[in-house]
Amino acid sequence: MARIVVDVMPKAEILDPQGQAIVGALGRLGFAGVSDVRQGKRFELEVDDTLDDDALHKIAEELLANTVIEEFSVSRVAQ
Amino acid sequence: MARIVVDVMPKAEILDPQGQAIVGALGRLGFAGVSDVRQGKRFELEVDDTLDDDALHKIAEELLANTVIEEFSVSRVAQ
Repeated sequence: MARIVVDVMPKAEILDPQGQAIVGALGRLGFAGVSDVRQGKRFELEVDDTLDDDALHKIAEELLANTVIEEFSVSRVAQ
Repeated sequence: MARIVVDVMPKAEILDPQGQAIVGALGRLGFAGVSDVRQGKRFELEVDDTLDDDALHKIAEELLANTVIEEFSVSRVAQ
């Protein structure tokens, strides 16, 4: 078994209202010094060792990320 | 400025219906070999260098994660 992490984030040119709401909330709660927040998703997968990088890339691209507005990265985690 | 990543994942003992839905969808779509998926959140923050690790931990604990059902990790990203 291998552990895979797929990070999915909104593209830089896409507005991120969730992140902006967090920046606003931090200010109101008294946490100064945070100038930008972007919120994305993190997936942790347990996969067979037979799955190669191409298959993982395809899973991330077709099912986990919306590549119109999001970018993703796939990484293997050392066990 | 420093870039901070906060990863928030459901605790191991908490059911993750979103992740289970992804496992089911992968099977129906013909992607074999994925035995478990857990879905969490990833936050990327731009913060002043004056913010220390304690402040970042507090931000993650109080605002970004629900520590009743989620665990989080804070890491600094090399620029």
